[in-house]
Amino acid sequence: MSSSLPFQLARRAQRIQPSIIREILNLAARPNVISLAGGLPSPDAFPLEKVREATNHVLRQTPREALQYASTEGFAPLREWVAQDLAAQGLRIGAGDVLITSGSQQGLDLVGKVLLDPGSVVAVESPTYVGALQAFNPYEADYLSIANDDEGPLPDALAQAGGARFLYLVPNFQNPTGRTIGAARREQLTAQARRMGLPLVEDNPYGDLWFDAPAPASLASHWPEGSVYLGSFSKVLAPGLRLGYVVAPPSLMPKLVQAKQAADLHTPIFNQQVVYQVVRDGFLAEHVPLVRERYRGHRDAMQAALLRHMPQGCRWSVPAGGMFFWLALPEGIDAMAMLAHAVELGVAYVPGFAFFADRSRHNLLRLSFVTAPPAQIDRGIELLAQALDTAPGWPTTRQGALQ
Amino acid sequence: MSSSLPFQLARRAQRIQPSIIREILNLAARPNVISLAGGLPSPDAFPLEKVREATNHVLRQTPREALQYASTEGFAPLREWVAQDLAAQGLRIGAGDVLITSGSQQGLDLVGKVLLDPGSVVAVESPTYVGALQAFNPYEADYLSIANDDEGPLPDALAQAGGARFLYLVPNFQNPTGRTIGAARREQLTAQARRMGLPLVEDNPYGDLWFDAPAPASLASHWPEGSVYLGSFSKVLAPGLRLGYVVAPPSLMPKLVQAKQAADLHTPIFNQQVVYQVVRDGFLAEHVPLVRERYRGHRDAMQAALLRHMPQGCRWSVPAGGMFFWLALPEGIDAMAMLAHAVELGVAYVPGFAFFADRSRHNLLRLSFVTAPPAQIDRGIELLAQALDTAPGWPTTRQGALQ
Repeated sequence: MSSSLPFQLARRAQRIQPSIIREILNLAARPNVISLAGGLPSPDAFPLEKVREATNHVLRQTPREALQYASTEGFAPLREWVAQDLAAQGLRIGAGDVLITSGSQQGLDLVGKVLLDPGSVVAVESPTYVGALQAFNPYEADYLSIANDDEGPLPDALAQAGGARFLYLVPNFQNPTGRTIGAARREQLTAQARRMGLPLVEDNPYGDLWFDAPAPASLASHWPEGSVYLGSFSKVLAPGLRLGYVVAPPSLMPKLVQAKQAADLHTPIFNQQVVYQVVRDGFLAEHVPLVRERYRGHRDAMQAALLRHMPQGCRWSVPAGGMFFWLALPEGIDAMAMLAHAVELGVAYVPGFAFFADRSRHNLLRLSFVTAPPAQIDRGIELLAQALDTAPGWPTTRQGALQ
Repeated sequence: MSSSLPFQLARRAQRIQPSIIREILNLAARPNVISLAGGLPSPDAFPLEKVREATNHVLRQTPREALQYASTEGFAPLREWVAQDLAAQGLRIGAGDVLITSGSQQGLDLVGKVLLDPGSVVAVESPTYVGALQAFNPYEADYLSIANDDEGPLPDALAQAGGARFLYLVPNFQNPTGRTIGAARREQLTAQARRMGLPLVEDNPYGDLWFDAPAPASLASHWPEGSVYLGSFSKVLAPGLRLGYVVAPPSLMPKLVQAKQAADLHTPIFNQQVVYQVVRDGFLAEHVPLVRERYRGHRDAMQAALLRHMPQGCRWSVPAGGMFFWLALPEGIDAMAMLAHAVELGVAYVPGFAFFADRSRHNLLRLSFVTAPPAQIDRGIELLAQALDTAPGWPTTRQGALQ
């Protein structure tokens, strides 16, 4: 710590570390590298014209309000819109239950700030969203990975999580696995959590990006008074506006609002008014199906490419929505060790170990299918197969592909 | 805490409390109340046409970048612009020394997150900016109020602050007092802090709002490697865009960036590009003088109104910039106790006790002169004098006004 003199860092600063994903995104940003790494929505899916119209409208109609300080809770009509929209998630709430945040990442930070003491246990999926670990780490949380099968965390395994401050879940088209928790499992998990008095933090950035059928109703709808629900406009509109929201019960909301006020006073009211203007007349009902259609095409292109290029011994499932494939390489191959060579060949991905709270698994990797266009996806997967071909430890096993 | 079941709150949540100022702003928002409470820039000073042009430009030229995820550090051209602009503060820095934040409030939060452990001492002015206390409170800081005179904190008094994590200062047109630290005092304070190894956190939202002459160079310029400097576009452009920045030495910057990434990934790139487009060609050199001119007029109106209406026994200084008068009522009058009656009469202000870390003083109040137009200012001060007339404890002393 001597390098930081005269500054003495807080103990928690040891737990504040660079994001492995951001480091890899920097790698992936090299020219001639096809990035299957970042979860960046396709800019082709941004509704540019609609955003332009909305921005002009706001700056014509309410410019003085849009540029002034505003309330911490958020723009009232947008909070009302979110509350109505979440009826589709089985949530019966009002505007007062919604806090607008600077992306759902801020929602995770606020939840950590209000609920986590040093040494508090957070129960997580295995693997889990790495950005949530990054948000909770500064509060010096410990993690308990809950055993799971293809349907999600096992309700019986929750029993170990007695005393945890909450269970964190991404139920729909999870980042990184693409897996969705089924309706029956949701009920079992919620019933078990409720019996235990274990709060749920349900993070749903991808729920609207379904390809075949909507995901089941939110877990929070089964136990609203024990659940925090996080949503985002990043995936259905555009991430650069940084707009998300937190739904929390009245027992918790005031502390979240006060923590938000201390953190940044409020989310830019300009951005909130623009997004409200975009969504207020049902625009998402026409726009989101186009995004789904686009991403379904990308998903199909990646599946075809994986079938075409991946050698035997690799395993994956076809995601029914969202943005990611989760690829298991044969045991013994280290996806992190292989990355530099892959980037040299011209393709980037995210090694899977970062998504395990205990960093226990090394042969997995995450592939985003939304950023690169389909033609690049095929070439990227071909290059990935080439990298695999020369990876140390290959071939250690030869299992049939499980699709 | 039983009301929050099943949620168990973090210990720090006890220190996360509603902002007294926000509560008062809610009072002040009643119809027919003249608000001298909030530090809301006058919307008449927002450069609407320029913001419209900039927004159109960004959405025409770089819409896909403006709506996409972006780097945590901030938009590179804006960081470069800030670095250049701060030469006027005596800072010789590059873009790499600048982190763009979601308002300077977020800068305060990040500083607290990275530097404060429970029980850490922060040395503060007396009074000090209440939003900083609000930002540091969740990190369970203790405060040491440094004795001061009209020139600012006393260098000798700093000696008590050995072991404090940093000294927090608003050197220019301070909120709430309006006081500016002179050049000689800056040098003495920095020399003393440097001898002690006591880092400085210098918060400068109001520096550009001078009426007669620019404030002296920043304290950070005397000891860059021991200083964090915070700035904001809220007062010179518009707060609703939520754009500020932190300048920190290389020993500290990486942790601040990582903490920011965990907190909200990045500040909206759309807002950053718009503001860059506004400022890049020197627009502030024409715009800020107009803001100064406007606020000087407001300041003069409030000074005239205070002279006209305030009874003997009240004391204040005329601020040379910024947004606030700081009014001392006779000892024995409690500005908080008087507020309800003042609001009933039709004027709101912020009681001064909230700005003292030890809440030790009760006869002071803050008056903002930037939000209400001059005619309302006069009427507001007249109503304030009426409220005083009937305040319990009045008159306890009869001193001459000190102007």
